[in-house]
Amino acid sequence: MAKVAFLLANNFEDSEMVNPYNAVREAGHEATIVGLEKNAVVNGKKGGASYTIEAASSEVKADDFDAIVIPGGSAPEALRVNEDVVRLVKEANDQGKVIAGICHGPQVMISADILKGKAVTCFIGIRDDVKLAGADFKDEEVVVAENIITSRTPKDEPAFIREILAKL
Amino acid sequence: MAKVAFLLANNFEDSEMVNPYNAVREAGHEATIVGLEKNAVVNGKKGGASYTIEAASSEVKADDFDAIVIPGGSAPEALRVNEDVVRLVKEANDQGKVIAGICHGPQVMISADILKGKAVTCFIGIRDDVKLAGADFKDEEVVVAENIITSRTPKDEPAFIREILAKL
Repeated sequence: MAKVAFLLANNFEDSEMVNPYNAVREAGHEATIVGLEKNAVVNGKKGGASYTIEAASSEVKADDFDAIVIPGGSAPEALRVNEDVVRLVKEANDQGKVIAGICHGPQVMISADILKGKAVTCFIGIRDDVKLAGADFKDEEVVVAENIITSRTPKDEPAFIREILAKL
Repeated sequence: MAKVAFLLANNFEDSEMVNPYNAVREAGHEATIVGLEKNAVVNGKKGGASYTIEAASSEVKADDFDAIVIPGGSAPEALRVNEDVVRLVKEANDQGKVIAGICHGPQVMISADILKGKAVTCFIGIRDDVKLAGADFKDEEVVVAENIITSRTPKDEPAFIREILAKL
Protein backbone atom coordinates (compact mmCIF):
# COMPACT_ATOMS: atom_id res chain seq x y z
CA MET A 1 0.00 0.00 0.00
CA ALA A 2 1.41 3.35 -1.09
CA LYS A 3 0.70 6.80 0.36
CA VAL A 4 -0.37 9.20 -2.36
CA ALA A 5 -0.81 12.98 -2.03
CA PHE A 6 -3.28 14.66 -4.39
CA LEU A 7 -2.45 18.38 -4.76
CA LEU A 8 -5.71 20.27 -5.06
CA ALA A 9 -7.09 23.82 -5.14
CA ASN A 10 -10.24 25.51 -6.45
CA ASN A 11 -11.23 25.11 -10.10
CA PHE A 12 -9.47 21.80 -10.65
CA GLU A 13 -10.46 19.85 -13.78
CA ASP A 14 -13.11 17.63 -12.22
CA SER A 15 -12.48 14.27 -13.87
CA GLU A 16 -8.70 14.61 -13.63
CA MET A 17 -9.11 14.48 -9.86
CA VAL A 18 -12.11 12.14 -9.53
CA ASN A 19 -10.86 9.30 -11.72
CA PRO A 20 -7.22 9.02 -10.58
CA TYR A 21 -8.29 9.52 -6.92
CA ASN A 22 -10.90 6.76 -7.11
CA ALA A 23 -8.55 4.42 -8.99
CA VAL A 24 -5.74 4.87 -6.48
CA ARG A 25 -8.08 4.16 -3.55
CA GLU A 26 -9.75 1.22 -5.26
CA ALA A 27 -6.29 -0.28 -5.79
CA GLY A 28 -5.86 -0.22 -1.99
CA HIS A 29 -3.59 2.79 -1.64
CA GLU A 30 -3.99 5.61 0.87
CA ALA A 31 -4.83 9.00 -0.62
CA THR A 32 -4.45 12.36 1.14
CA ILE A 33 -5.79 15.61 -0.33
CA VAL A 34 -3.18 18.33 0.16
CA GLY A 35 -3.95 21.99 -0.52
CA LEU A 36 -3.39 25.52 0.62
CA GLU A 37 -5.66 25.54 3.67
CA LYS A 38 -6.69 22.61 5.85
CA ASN A 39 -10.48 21.94 5.96
CA ALA A 40 -11.17 24.28 3.03
CA VAL A 41 -13.65 22.90 0.49
CA VAL A 42 -12.44 23.14 -3.10
CA ASN A 43 -14.64 22.78 -6.17
CA GLY A 44 -14.07 21.47 -9.67
CA LYS A 45 -14.30 24.05 -12.46
CA LYS A 46 -17.17 22.14 -14.07
CA GLY A 47 -19.13 21.89 -10.82
CA GLY A 48 -18.96 18.11 -10.84
CA ALA A 49 -16.89 17.46 -7.73
CA SER A 50 -15.93 18.96 -4.37
CA TYR A 51 -13.31 17.83 -1.87
CA THR A 52 -12.15 18.92 1.57
CA ILE A 53 -8.44 19.65 1.96
CA GLU A 54 -7.11 17.16 4.50
CA ALA A 55 -3.66 18.66 5.01
CA ALA A 56 -2.13 22.07 4.27
CA SER A 57 1.03 22.09 2.19
CA SER A 58 2.77 23.85 5.12
CA GLU A 59 2.26 20.84 7.39
CA VAL A 60 3.37 17.97 5.17
CA LYS A 61 6.76 16.83 3.89
CA ALA A 62 7.93 14.58 1.11
CA ASP A 63 8.74 11.83 3.67
CA ASP A 64 4.99 11.50 4.34
CA PHE A 65 4.24 10.22 0.81
CA ASP A 66 5.34 7.73 -1.85
CA ALA A 67 3.79 9.65 -4.72
CA ILE A 68 2.24 13.00 -5.63
CA VAL A 69 -0.56 13.43 -8.19
CA ILE A 70 -1.40 16.87 -9.63
CA PRO A 71 -4.73 17.18 -11.50
CA GLY A 72 -5.21 20.02 -14.02
CA GLY A 73 -7.62 22.91 -14.50
CA SER A 74 -6.83 26.28 -12.93
CA ALA A 75 -5.79 24.69 -9.62
CA PRO A 76 -2.10 24.29 -10.56
CA GLU A 77 -1.75 28.08 -11.02
CA ALA A 78 -2.94 28.62 -7.44
CA LEU A 79 -0.71 25.82 -6.10
CA ARG A 80 2.49 26.77 -7.93
CA VAL A 81 2.74 30.18 -6.25
CA ASN A 82 2.72 28.55 -2.80
CA GLU A 83 6.25 28.09 -1.44
CA ASP A 84 5.34 24.99 0.57
CA VAL A 85 3.84 23.25 -2.46
CA VAL A 86 6.98 23.99 -4.47
CA ARG A 87 9.21 22.74 -1.62
CA LEU A 88 7.15 19.54 -1.28
CA VAL A 89 7.37 18.71 -4.99
CA LYS A 90 11.08 19.55 -5.14
CA GLU A 91 11.85 17.35 -2.10
CA ALA A 92 9.75 14.47 -3.42
CA ASN A 93 11.61 14.68 -6.71
CA ASP A 94 15.00 14.75 -4.92
CA GLN A 95 13.90 11.53 -3.18
CA GLY A 96 12.98 9.96 -6.53
CA LYS A 97 9.31 9.68 -5.60
CA VAL A 98 6.61 9.36 -8.24
CA ILE A 99 5.24 12.75 -9.36
CA ALA A 100 2.33 12.61 -11.80
CA GLY A 101 0.69 15.62 -13.48
CA ILE A 102 -2.02 15.90 -16.11
CA CYS A 103 -3.12 18.85 -18.29
CA HIS A 104 -2.01 22.00 -16.37
CA GLY A 105 -0.54 19.86 -13.55
CA PRO A 106 2.99 20.20 -14.99
CA GLN A 107 2.83 23.96 -14.22
CA VAL A 108 3.63 23.00 -10.61
CA MET A 109 6.58 20.93 -11.87
CA ILE A 110 7.86 23.96 -13.83
CA SER A 111 7.80 26.09 -10.67
CA ALA A 112 9.56 23.32 -8.71
CA ASP A 113 12.22 23.18 -11.45
CA ILE A 114 12.15 19.39 -11.79
CA LEU A 115 11.68 19.07 -15.56
CA LYS A 116 15.16 19.77 -16.92
CA GLY A 117 16.14 17.12 -19.46
CA LYS A 118 12.95 15.11 -18.84
CA ALA A 119 10.53 13.89 -21.51
CA VAL A 120 7.19 15.47 -20.62
CA THR A 121 3.72 16.00 -22.04
CA CYS A 122 1.00 18.45 -20.93
CA PHE A 123 -2.00 20.45 -22.16
CA ILE A 124 -0.85 21.92 -25.48
CA GLY A 125 -1.53 25.49 -24.26
CA ILE A 126 1.39 25.27 -21.81
CA ARG A 127 3.71 23.35 -24.16
CA ASP A 128 6.04 26.32 -24.64
CA ASP A 129 6.37 26.84 -20.88
CA VAL A 130 7.33 23.21 -20.35
CA LYS A 131 9.96 23.55 -23.09
CA LEU A 132 11.37 26.72 -21.52
CA ALA A 133 11.64 24.77 -18.24
CA GLY A 134 14.07 22.48 -20.04
CA ALA A 135 11.78 19.54 -20.78
CA ASP A 136 11.64 17.56 -24.00
CA PHE A 137 7.94 17.99 -24.94
CA LYS A 138 6.14 14.96 -26.39
CA ASP A 139 2.60 14.97 -27.79
CA GLU A 140 1.60 11.56 -26.36
CA GLU A 141 -1.22 10.31 -24.11
CA VAL A 142 1.21 9.53 -21.33
CA VAL A 143 4.96 10.02 -20.93
CA VAL A 144 7.00 8.33 -18.21
CA ALA A 145 10.46 9.78 -17.53
CA GLU A 146 11.94 7.97 -14.54
CA ASN A 147 9.77 9.18 -11.62
CA ILE A 148 7.77 11.74 -13.62
CA ILE A 149 4.46 10.77 -15.25
CA THR A 150 2.57 13.28 -17.43
CA SER A 151 -0.56 13.33 -19.60
CA ARG A 152 -2.35 15.94 -21.76
CA THR A 153 -6.13 16.01 -21.18
CA PRO A 154 -9.06 14.15 -19.55
CA LYS A 155 -9.10 11.80 -22.59
CA ASP A 156 -5.71 10.50 -21.47
CA GLU A 157 -6.89 9.58 -17.97
CA PRO A 158 -6.91 5.78 -18.53
CA ALA A 159 -3.26 5.81 -19.65
CA PHE A 160 -2.33 8.27 -16.88
CA ILE A 161 -3.96 6.09 -14.21
CA ARG A 162 -2.42 2.91 -15.65
CA GLU A 163 1.12 4.31 -15.38
CA ILE A 164 0.55 5.70 -11.87
CA LEU A 165 -0.72 2.35 -10.59
CA ALA A 166 2.18 0.56 -12.30
CA LYS A 167 4.66 2.70 -10.32
CA LEU A 168 3.02 2.35 -6.89
CA MET B 1 -5.84 57.57 -35.36
CA ALA B 2 -4.07 54.26 -34.70
CA LYS B 3 -5.03 50.80 -35.93
CA VAL B 4 -5.25 48.37 -33.02
CA ALA B 5 -5.64 44.57 -33.24
CA PHE B 6 -7.32 42.83 -30.30
CA LEU B 7 -6.29 39.14 -30.19
CA LEU B 8 -9.29 37.14 -29.03
CA ALA B 9 -10.48 33.54 -28.61
CA ASN B 10 -13.10 31.77 -26.51
CA ASN B 11 -13.08 32.15 -22.73
CA PHE B 12 -11.35 35.51 -22.67
CA GLU B 13 -11.52 37.45 -19.38
CA ASP B 14 -14.59 39.58 -20.14
CA SER B 15 -13.64 42.96 -18.71
CA GLU B 16 -10.05 42.74 -19.96
CA MET B 17 -11.47 42.86 -23.49
CA VAL B 18 -14.52 45.08 -22.99
CA ASN B 19 -12.82 47.96 -21.18
CA PRO B 20 -9.63 48.37 -23.26
CA TYR B 21 -11.64 47.81 -26.49
CA ASN B 22 -14.19 50.50 -25.60
CA ALA B 23 -11.50 52.92 -24.40
CA VAL B 24 -9.46 52.53 -27.59
CA ARG B 25 -12.52 53.17 -29.78
CA GLU B 26 -13.77 56.07 -27.67
CA ALA B 27 -10.34 57.68 -28.09
CA GLY B 28 -10.96 57.62 -31.84
CA HIS B 29 -8.75 54.69 -32.81
CA GLU B 30 -9.72 51.86 -35.15
CA ALA B 31 -10.02 48.43 -33.50
CA THR B 32 -10.01 45.07 -35.31
CA ILE B 33 -10.80 41.79 -33.55
CA VAL B 34 -8.32 39.15 -34.74
CA GLY B 35 -8.77 35.46 -33.90
CA LEU B 36 -8.39 31.95 -35.17
CA GLU B 37 -11.41 31.83 -37.48
CA LYS B 38 -13.09 34.73 -39.29
CA ASN B 39 -16.77 35.28 -38.37
CA ALA B 40 -16.59 32.92 -35.38
CA VAL B 41 -18.33 34.22 -32.26
CA VAL B 42 -16.20 34.04 -29.13
CA ASN B 43 -17.50 34.34 -25.58
CA GLY B 44 -16.05 35.68 -22.37
CA LYS B 45 -15.43 33.11 -19.62
CA LYS B 46 -17.82 34.93 -17.28
CA GLY B 47 -20.60 35.11 -19.87
CA GLY B 48 -20.57 38.90 -19.89
CA ALA B 49 -19.42 39.60 -23.45
CA SER B 50 -19.35 38.12 -26.95
CA TYR B 51 -17.53 39.32 -30.06
CA THR B 52 -17.31 38.25 -33.68
CA ILE B 53 -13.82 37.65 -35.06
CA GLU B 54 -13.31 40.17 -37.87
CA ALA B 55 -10.07 38.77 -39.29
CA ALA B 56 -8.29 35.43 -39.02
CA SER B 57 -4.68 35.51 -37.85
CA SER B 58 -3.74 33.80 -41.14
CA GLU B 59 -4.94 36.78 -43.19
CA VAL B 60 -3.36 39.69 -41.33
CA LYS B 61 0.19 40.95 -41.00
CA ALA B 62 1.99 43.27 -38.61
CA ASP B 63 1.98 46.03 -41.29
CA ASP B 64 -1.82 46.23 -40.91
CA PHE B 65 -1.63 47.50 -37.32
CA ASP B 66 0.05 50.04 -35.04
CA ALA B 67 -0.60 48.08 -31.87
CA ILE B 68 -1.74 44.68 -30.59
CA VAL B 69 -3.72 44.17 -27.37
CA ILE B 70 -4.03 40.70 -25.77
CA PRO B 71 -6.73 40.28 -23.08
CA GLY B 72 -6.41 37.44 -20.57
CA GLY B 73 -8.50 34.46 -19.46
CA SER B 74 -8.07 31.12 -21.21
CA ALA B 75 -8.00 32.74 -24.66
CA PRO B 76 -4.21 33.26 -24.75
CA GLU B 77 -3.62 29.50 -24.42
CA ALA B 78 -5.69 28.90 -27.55
CA LEU B 79 -4.01 31.77 -29.42
CA ARG B 80 -0.39 30.94 -28.53
CA VAL B 81 -0.49 27.52 -30.21
CA ASN B 82 -1.51 29.13 -33.53
CA GLU B 83 1.52 29.72 -35.78
CA ASP B 84 0.00 32.77 -37.46
CA VAL B 85 -0.69 34.47 -34.13
CA VAL B 86 2.90 33.85 -33.04
CA ARG B 87 4.23 35.15 -36.38
CA LEU B 88 2.05 38.28 -36.14
CA VAL B 89 3.23 39.13 -32.63
CA LYS B 90 6.86 38.42 -33.47
CA GLU B 91 6.73 40.63 -36.59
CA ALA B 92 4.96 43.44 -34.76
CA ASN B 93 7.64 43.31 -32.07
CA ASP B 94 10.41 43.35 -34.71
CA GLN B 95 8.78 46.52 -36.08
CA GLY B 96 8.74 48.07 -32.58
CA LYS B 97 4.97 48.25 -32.50
CA VAL B 98 3.06 48.47 -29.23
CA ILE B 99 2.16 45.05 -27.81
CA ALA B 100 0.01 45.09 -24.67
CA GLY B 101 -1.02 42.02 -22.64
CA ILE B 102 -2.91 41.68 -19.37
CA CYS B 103 -3.28 38.71 -16.99
CA HIS B 104 -2.64 35.57 -19.16
CA GLY B 105 -2.05 37.74 -22.27
CA PRO B 106 1.75 37.55 -21.83
CA GLN B 107 1.51 33.77 -22.54
CA VAL B 108 1.29 34.75 -26.22
CA MET B 109 4.39 36.91 -25.80
CA ILE B 110 6.25 33.96 -24.26
CA SER B 111 5.43 31.81 -27.29
CA ALA B 112 6.49 34.63 -29.65
CA ASP B 113 9.78 34.85 -27.72
CA ILE B 114 9.68 38.64 -27.36
CA LEU B 115 10.22 38.96 -23.58
CA LYS B 116 13.97 38.38 -23.22
CA GLY B 117 15.49 41.09 -21.03
CA LYS B 118 12.20 42.98 -20.76
CA ALA B 119 10.54 44.13 -17.53
CA VAL B 120 7.14 42.43 -17.50
CA THR B 121 4.20 41.79 -15.21
CA CYS B 122 1.36 39.25 -15.56
CA PHE B 123 -1.12 37.15 -13.57
CA ILE B 124 0.94 35.74 -10.70
CA GLY B 125 0.07 32.14 -11.71
CA ILE B 126 2.23 32.43 -14.85
CA ARG B 127 5.01 34.46 -13.19
CA ASP B 128 7.48 31.57 -13.37
CA ASP B 129 6.81 31.05 -17.10
CA VAL B 130 7.47 34.72 -17.85
CA LYS B 131 10.75 34.47 -15.89
CA LEU B 132 11.80 31.35 -17.82
CA ALA B 133 11.10 33.27 -21.04
CA GLY B 134 13.85 35.67 -19.94
CA ALA B 135 11.73 38.52 -18.60
CA ASP B 136 12.40 40.51 -15.45
CA PHE B 137 9.11 39.95 -13.55
CA LYS B 138 7.67 42.95 -11.65
CA ASP B 139 4.64 42.81 -9.36
CA GLU B 140 3.18 46.17 -10.44
CA GLU B 141 -0.19 47.33 -11.84
CA VAL B 142 1.37 48.17 -15.18
CA VAL B 143 4.89 47.81 -16.57
CA VAL B 144 6.06 49.55 -19.73
CA ALA B 145 9.27 48.21 -21.32
CA GLU B 146 9.82 50.05 -24.59
CA ASN B 147 6.99 48.76 -26.83
CA ILE B 148 5.69 46.15 -24.37
CA ILE B 149 2.91 47.02 -21.90
CA THR B 150 1.76 44.47 -19.31
CA SER B 151 -0.66 44.29 -16.39
CA ARG B 152 -1.72 41.65 -13.84
CA THR B 153 -5.50 41.44 -13.39
CA PRO B 154 -8.82 43.20 -14.15
CA LYS B 155 -8.13 45.55 -11.20
CA ASP B 156 -5.22 46.98 -13.18
CA GLU B 157 -7.34 47.85 -16.24
CA PRO B 158 -7.32 51.64 -15.66
CA ALA B 159 -3.50 51.74 -15.56
CA PHE B 160 -3.27 49.30 -18.50
CA ILE B 161 -5.63 51.42 -20.62
CA ARG B 162 -3.87 54.65 -19.64
CA GLU B 163 -0.50 53.36 -20.86
CA ILE B 164 -1.94 51.94 -24.08
CA LEU B 165 -3.60 55.24 -24.96
CA ALA B 166 -0.42 57.15 -24.08
CA LYS B 167 1.50 55.07 -26.66
CA LEU B 168 -1.01 55.35 -29.53
